[in-house]
Amino acid sequence: MRIRLINPNTTESMTATIAAAARLVAAPTTEIAASTSRSGAASIEGHYDEAMSVIGLIEAIKADPGADAYVIACFGDPGLLAAREFTSAPVLGIAEAAMHAASFVATGFSIVTTLERTRIIAEHLVRSYGMTQHCRRVRAVGIPVLDLEDPNSAASARILAECEAAIAEDNSGAIVLGCAGMADLTKHIEDRLQIPVIDGVAAAVKFAEALVGLGLKTSKHGDLAFPLPKIYRGITAAYAPRQ
Amino acid sequence: MRIRLINPNTTESMTATIAAAARLVAAPTTEIAASTSRSGAASIEGHYDEAMSVIGLIEAIKADPGADAYVIACFGDPGLLAAREFTSAPVLGIAEAAMHAASFVATGFSIVTTLERTRIIAEHLVRSYGMTQHCRRVRAVGIPVLDLEDPNSAASARILAECEAAIAEDNSGAIVLGCAGMADLTKHIEDRLQIPVIDGVAAAVKFAEALVGLGLKTSKHGDLAFPLPKIYRGITAAYAPRQ
Amino acid sequence: MRIRLINPNTTESMTATIAAAARLVAAPTTEIAASTSRSGAASIEGHYDEAMSVIGLIEAIKADPGADAYVIACFGDPGLLAAREFTSAPVLGIAEAAMHAASFVATGFSIVTTLERTRIIAEHLVRSYGMTQHCRRVRAVGIPVLDLEDPNSAASARILAECEAAIAEDNSGAIVLGCAGMADLTKHIEDRLQIPVIDGVAAAVKFAEALVGLGLKTSKHGDLAFPLPKIYRGITAAYAPRQ
Amino acid sequence: MRIRLINPNTTESMTATIAAAARLVAAPTTEIAASTSRSGAASIEGHYDEAMSVIGLIEAIKADPGADAYVIACFGDPGLLAAREFTSAPVLGIAEAAMHAASFVATGFSIVTTLERTRIIAEHLVRSYGMTQHCRRVRAVGIPVLDLEDPNSAASARILAECEAAIAEDNSGAIVLGCAGMADLTKHIEDRLQIPVIDGVAAAVKFAEALVGLGLKTSKHGDLAFPLPKIYRGITAAYAPRQ
Amino acid sequence: MRIRLINPNTTESMTATIAAAARLVAAPTTEIAASTSRSGAASIEGHYDEAMSVIGLIEAIKADPGADAYVIACFGDPGLLAAREFTSAPVLGIAEAAMHAASFVATGFSIVTTLERTRIIAEHLVRSYGMTQHCRRVRAVGIPVLDLEDPNSAASARILAECEAAIAEDNSGAIVLGCAGMADLTKHIEDRLQIPVIDGVAAAVKFAEALVGLGLKTSKHGDLAFPLPKIYRGITAAYAPRQ
Amino acid sequence: MRIRLINPNTTESMTATIAAAARLVAAPTTEIAASTSRSGAASIEGHYDEAMSVIGLIEAIKADPGADAYVIACFGDPGLLAAREFTSAPVLGIAEAAMHAASFVATGFSIVTTLERTRIIAEHLVRSYGMTQHCRRVRAVGIPVLDLEDPNSAASARILAECEAAIAEDNSGAIVLGCAGMADLTKHIEDRLQIPVIDGVAAAVKFAEALVGLGLKTSKHGDLAFPLPKIYRGITAAYAPRQ
Repeated sequence: MRIRLINPNTTESMTATIAAAARLVAAPTTEIAASTSRSGAASIEGHYDEAMSVIGLIEAIKADPGADAYVIACFGDPGLLAAREFTSAPVLGIAEAAMHAASFVATGFSIVTTLERTRIIAEHLVRSYGMTQHCRRVRAVGIPVLDLEDPNSAASARILAECEAAIAEDNSGAIVLGCAGMADLTKHIEDRLQIPVIDGVAAAVKFAEALVGLGLKTSKHGDLAFPLPKIYRGITAAYAPRQ
Repeated sequence: MRIRLINPNTTESMTATIAAAARLVAAPTTEIAASTSRSGAASIEGHYDEAMSVIGLIEAIKADPGADAYVIACFGDPGLLAAREFTSAPVLGIAEAAMHAASFVATGFSIVTTLERTRIIAEHLVRSYGMTQHCRRVRAVGIPVLDLEDPNSAASARILAECEAAIAEDNSGAIVLGCAGMADLTKHIEDRLQIPVIDGVAAAVKFAEALVGLGLKTSKHGDLAFPLPKIYRGITAAYAPRQ
Repeated sequence: MRIRLINPNTTESMTATIAAAARLVAAPTTEIAASTSRSGAASIEGHYDEAMSVIGLIEAIKADPGADAYVIACFGDPGLLAAREFTSAPVLGIAEAAMHAASFVATGFSIVTTLERTRIIAEHLVRSYGMTQHCRRVRAVGIPVLDLEDPNSAASARILAECEAAIAEDNSGAIVLGCAGMADLTKHIEDRLQIPVIDGVAAAVKFAEALVGLGLKTSKHGDLAFPLPKIYRGITAAYAPRQ
Repeated sequence: MRIRLINPNTTESMTATIAAAARLVAAPTTEIAASTSRSGAASIEGHYDEAMSVIGLIEAIKADPGADAYVIACFGDPGLLAAREFTSAPVLGIAEAAMHAASFVATGFSIVTTLERTRIIAEHLVRSYGMTQHCRRVRAVGIPVLDLEDPNSAASARILAECEAAIAEDNSGAIVLGCAGMADLTKHIEDRLQIPVIDGVAAAVKFAEALVGLGLKTSKHGDLAFPLPKIYRGITAAYAPRQ
Repeated sequence: MRIRLINPNTTESMTATIAAAARLVAAPTTEIAASTSRSGAASIEGHYDEAMSVIGLIEAIKADPGADAYVIACFGDPGLLAAREFTSAPVLGIAEAAMHAASFVATGFSIVTTLERTRIIAEHLVRSYGMTQHCRRVRAVGIPVLDLEDPNSAASARILAECEAAIAEDNSGAIVLGCAGMADLTKHIEDRLQIPVIDGVAAAVKFAEALVGLGLKTSKHGDLAFPLPKIYRGITAAYAPRQ
Repeated sequence: MRIRLINPNTTESMTATIAAAARLVAAPTTEIAASTSRSGAASIEGHYDEAMSVIGLIEAIKADPGADAYVIACFGDPGLLAAREFTSAPVLGIAEAAMHAASFVATGFSIVTTLERTRIIAEHLVRSYGMTQHCRRVRAVGIPVLDLEDPNSAASARILAECEAAIAEDNSGAIVLGCAGMADLTKHIEDRLQIPVIDGVAAAVKFAEALVGLGLKTSKHGDLAFPLPKIYRGITAAYAPRQ
């Protein structure tokens, strides 16, 4: 099967990190086809960046209409329900996948994300996904997304310290890493903490394989039915749903 | 004060209906400046239409950066938090405004909206806005948004019938009309039902006036702070946040 | 229009503070008619004080049956639903108005109130109004209500310090002042904090204007219908509902 | 021990019914001292009636300051927290007691109450007491409270029919009778339904005995501490808390 | 009446402590018949210990089928719903009883329990019983259950210290002791704290007396109906439900 | 990898059905090792049956300590947290897996289960797993579990009819089959309904593969840490946790 892994920000080096994390866990028969969005923000750190990233996400789905499943590789899961409307293949967000995976291996988890403003967005997701009982706290390290790529930044150490605080203070049994750009830190942190540390990219890839293996497709009954055909104008004209 | 009233769909006749409803309630000193989105869907009836409407919404805000407040005149409140990031003026969604107004005049209300798929989206908003205790039921009449404009359609009668069912079955003391396109039906339905019937366009205009009168602006501390300046690529390049 | 602003405690100097705050934001065509309760407690700082204040509140409404709207100017919103039953004009509580206003300009807010015992009452209101997701914390400064009037007290400084703690610790984007007696501190604190600071008196006045402008009245279908006519005995005999 | 059982409405015949129900279950060593409120409404059927009943309730507590516990015998539990502030003896509401008892003998129950408007008030209590998961539905039979006393009314038959509907439709294992005036119907209905039927008066008396037996008193730390001493004016002057 | 008080762990000395606490509060006409489980763990400190204790619990109920009520004297309330299915007499768990009692005398309480892992289990119970609004925090002292029996341990002092922290930090008006083994500390702690301190064993005994006094039995309509008769195999063969 | 699939009831023919459903979706490299419990009920249809099935479940895990993951193939997920304590390999319940899978492909789903009493248990699981927002209704067909195996029963037709009712009445986009014994009906029903129909056995197998592929194990920090070593007595003596 082919899983289309979409980095909805436009930073190619981050796509490389994400794709590597995905390939590390993908089944031998799974092709990880990774895309960098051609439209949208260099990093996604707020509601506005998220909203502006959806067109690029849809473009990437349109460019590979035959994928067996799609993964949105940004922890805010931007455009998740729009993408589910747009295609009948399963679509997974990495925040969603990570939280669900965490709930399978611990009764409580903490999320460690990048910026304070992102923290609030993650809290909204916790509620949307019904994870209020499982997620004990969302923590932010105060590091912009793209600084995660800088080998000279202290990002890794600060993330680890925040994870240690989560264990000590939050009564949590697992950690969810709250940014696709943290994917390559998972093993390092897990080795240090000795509790499950979950990267959403890997989790989403495996759950996408699972859904495809189950023959499940996105429901086309109700709000996830294909968009109704209609005229779109202006900059979005090319994205009008067709019959 | 000037309230910028944005119809995030691209159907100008609906903007006229909305603007008329707004002007009916606006204070004498309030200018209602109404825009039709130049980008986006002819009607907004799903997650995908909503996501695709945000660029047009932001365009409309950018085109009038000095407005005292903005109203998003679509019952799904598309792009609400993105818009609040983008400007420091107050921004109100009509679903949000209608539900809050209803909670001030009744302990329980029902929402009557257009399509089944829209019904589920409205239920998500009910949860986001903390209205689970107040909103007793969301009902759909099975009428597409643009059919509301057709004088030959049975829309008005079906909406009235659904409102009557809401009173009889839901234990509700007020009705929220779940589409901007229903704005001109408010008085007709209220006359028939003899309970409060709330159109979100009117409610949002009055609450916008209230917030401006209070000197309140959108908080720039936390997730609604201005978008961080960064590079945007592709079709969204022109929407990159600047310092 | 005339808004009847009722201070349900019996301290006239506090009514003056409240009325001044109301007049500062009222529209030119709005008359702010302020009353001090003739019955009830000198300050309202608990469930008992609240319950005992309802008769005075109803007296004040009865004394001005033609007002276009009523505002209950005590942060516990005592007698709110009883008052809504008693009149068909809109009735707003200042806690209710402040929390709703805060939810329009920030995704999270903190309330800063007077005494510890009041804090718990405010937490009950947060739940009643569906604000659990928006209100991140209720804080108390440990100052009795009437001490707010004493120019020699350290009240202002302690409230400001608590607000600063709210920003630093609660992840909040706005502050709700949890006592009508704090109305005159709003601008001072907002100037210092540079985030929205919301006084419920002003918010309730503007929302009352909004509801009147919308032509909305309290629903008389359901639990807010006029009280059923019946005999009342003893001290309450004069308050019996009539047909 | 002496349990002061207060009928907060002013109808003495109802007090007799209530007292009889209480004495039927009270321990031999328990004295049931029943009072009819001297102030307030002949029947309590709304928020306004409830608010106006609190003074009479407090009068009745003041008149017997040495009781070991107090029961508020109206299903809306009017003035419950105010009464808990006012005395250090345990105070129980009959709605509260009935719901808690029901949750001990069934995983789900239905409430059958009098009027539609009362139904909504009962739903508020369900939420306040944390019974949302246990209470599957509140039902109203459309009978005014005082009609329960009329031997010629069809009240009993309609209540039974509603209880049967609750079993058939609500997936409930127990019935809570939602009015003190239904106390004498309990056994009759239970015999017919063969599931637990709970009258709050009896439940509150037994739980009051339990709390007294445990040596528990109302907490005086926090919002239930004695009212702060202060001046009360007007009609409430005599109710001012003293040191 | 006879209340069968079952210590579902197999430590007889703890049964003695529990029985003494029960007898201290039981009515003169109540026989406290205490059992130590013949099967199961020496102490119950986790999900596994709980699950393994249910057979012993059922054995104890089977051994005294004529008891008027049963109390499960372990704060995790293991096997509560299974026991309610198995018998028609009322069954109470001590965590359940303690939390309900606390909600009658305070608007907020804290639970102080033994081990960190038990803390999470207690949090689950808080949600199951609808006590999220009332229980402000569950605290653990880090002491294994059986250490409570050791006169040389510092258990008592550490529990008291944690209770004091609860009052200072949690805004709580009452304390629930989160282990049957703490039953003999109740009075000591209450004397020191001067707020209600609730031991679930005593609370469950008094509530059991109350339910028996009310003539209430466990509902046999729905999920608590007697287990359907069927074949059981292996180690559980003797526990098969019979007609 | 080897997934140990445990049917916690003692009916071998049902294990065969379950194992077949599992093998249909398992990856080529996954060994499905299926067990029938040697202890417990012939079918699990209540809290009591569930509690009595845990020993057999633990026996089955002990008998295959080296499995890479375990699946509990009964829709009540009996013993889930106890099993997670007992092993460090991932453990999945089929109700849990089915609900999570459904939430990935639809915004709302209905559960169709066997008996009314089971319906209530499923509703408890919905809450435990945070699925209140996603699960729109639990429905029961009134068929005992073992009747699902009878080719002459009308089970299949009644289940299909209930699923059709769910689509028509519940606003649901997917169906979760609420019994392991329905596993072989999945495709038949899905073909008829044309919406996703989810069997928990298949879902749990694929999610187990996913967790193993991610290298995730059950957290041993907190309440899922290995049971503390201690003495067990009586019938459970052989199940005492060891160091």
